[in-house]
Amino acid sequence: MYTIGIDLGGTNLRIGVFKENGELIEEQNCPTEVEKGPEYTIGIMAKAINSIKNKYQIKAVGIGAPGPLNPHEGVIIEPPNLRGWVNIPLVKILEEKTYLPVKLENDANAAALAEAKQGAGKGASSVFFITVSTGIGGGFVLDGQLVSGAQGNCGEIGNMIVNPNLDAYQGLGLNRGALEGHASGTAIGRMGQERLNITNGAQGVFQLAEQGNETAQEILDEVVNYLAIGIANIVHTVNPEIIVIGGGVMKSQDLILDPLIKKTKQYLYPSLKAVLNIKPALLDQKAGLIGAGLLPN
Amino acid sequence: MYTIGIDLGGTNLRIGVFKENGELIEEQNCPTEVEKGPEYTIGIMAKAINSIKNKYQIKAVGIGAPGPLNPHEGVIIEPPNLRGWVNIPLVKILEEKTYLPVKLENDANAAALAEAKQGAGKGASSVFFITVSTGIGGGFVLDGQLVSGAQGNCGEIGNMIVNPNLDAYQGLGLNRGALEGHASGTAIGRMGQERLNITNGAQGVFQLAEQGNETAQEILDEVVNYLAIGIANIVHTVNPEIIVIGGGVMKSQDLILDPLIKKTKQYLYPSLKAVLNIKPALLDQKAGLIGAGLLPN
Repeated sequence: MYTIGIDLGGTNLRIGVFKENGELIEEQNCPTEVEKGPEYTIGIMAKAINSIKNKYQIKAVGIGAPGPLNPHEGVIIEPPNLRGWVNIPLVKILEEKTYLPVKLENDANAAALAEAKQGAGKGASSVFFITVSTGIGGGFVLDGQLVSGAQGNCGEIGNMIVNPNLDAYQGLGLNRGALEGHASGTAIGRMGQERLNITNGAQGVFQLAEQGNETAQEILDEVVNYLAIGIANIVHTVNPEIIVIGGGVMKSQDLILDPLIKKTKQYLYPSLKAVLNIKPALLDQKAGLIGAGLLPN
Repeated sequence: MYTIGIDLGGTNLRIGVFKENGELIEEQNCPTEVEKGPEYTIGIMAKAINSIKNKYQIKAVGIGAPGPLNPHEGVIIEPPNLRGWVNIPLVKILEEKTYLPVKLENDANAAALAEAKQGAGKGASSVFFITVSTGIGGGFVLDGQLVSGAQGNCGEIGNMIVNPNLDAYQGLGLNRGALEGHASGTAIGRMGQERLNITNGAQGVFQLAEQGNETAQEILDEVVNYLAIGIANIVHTVNPEIIVIGGGVMKSQDLILDPLIKKTKQYLYPSLKAVLNIKPALLDQKAGLIGAGLLPN
């Protein structure tokens, strides 16, 4: 028996076929073409699933998609990254079109499952995955099982308040002083524009910091500090064996990851500091697809 | 088959006998007499267990004790509330003295298990328990199982940073702006002393607030705000079905619980706000003992 995993992104639609052990054996990609509406994209998904069904014995389909969504009801609510998808009962539609059980999850949760099972968290009893990219998201895997949350919102750490004295940024939905508003790639880019007068986003800030620019370094210090507060808060809340961090912002390991580990330790109880285990994600762009393929297991 | 539950507190030692369904059928209490040292108290525990063994068929013993402790190794590390207990291998000693399997957990985790199984969280798929008393602690129960944490520190939310611009208080171990330093009973008492010049602790602040004193009300508003940030951060991290709040500070329901629910909603995503479920704890002083009795199940 095999599973199908689908990574439904705002730009790309990735579809993979997986062995029951989670090994990806076939993959196809195409543009999501979100401007053509959900019916069009769902049609492509159904067609691909039914075509794969002719070749493999498929047990079920897993889909990772941008939130907000309701995994228990299988409904995509209204993701900023899938414009035009409003209250789409994706699971019901696909189950009717393919006669297969379909499971839907938040894309960060799917990525968390992949990193816990096959990536940097492999073998750990509990893994908290954090992705720092345009936004900030995460997911929690305990004893090999994804913790979805009562409303499927486990890991929505972008909205965690790390300093209530700061402003709200990056969309009306976020709290004042939310982690995502002050430590995401978008936040770094905004600070670059405000303080350095540059318009090339987080990348520009990283470049200047590497060249020794003090203001750029201050921005990164601030970001590292808020990420450290966020991680320490997670550790004191669920005490995972390992924290796995992925996303574009984490690629600059010297500038972010090493100082982040050091800073996080300052915020932990001694017994937790001694065993803090923060690792960079291993699966990168593939995490969402692999996680989707693991969802039905 | 029965279990024995022991609530090892700094002042009182409670020992209960439980049916396998968690029903408490017999209870005995005595002072811990911590000044006589761990050997004395452990002796009393062993004697009580062996005496109960003559009457009931006992499967195992569960103990809830103040942290820090290591539940995986069964060692009490150095709790401020059990002066003189330093690196005591309690599980090993008691197993040797009683020939029964013994399980040790943090007292807040034990209370969380009790509230999830028999208290305000009964029937919920996931319960996050918070106790606001002299200190602030908590515990997380998922699908009926206590989430202990990789180092047994799940639920150590007293050290969660809710405002990094604030000071560190209440013991050197806490972070600057930690929840416990700014929202515990001790914190309320300290603010009463600083701003109202009263010395009768949190109780004094509650009394003045009830009489319409504005400064006392401001203190409580501040405390409610930090508790709300803490709860919202927990909800965005693990999205439990229900939050159960206990501890002495929560007894003033009108002054704390109702405003707290209202404030927490301000910090949640709309989909989470709509379903927020915060309930006062039901088991009160008994939670620790009942949870200890449930630990071996």
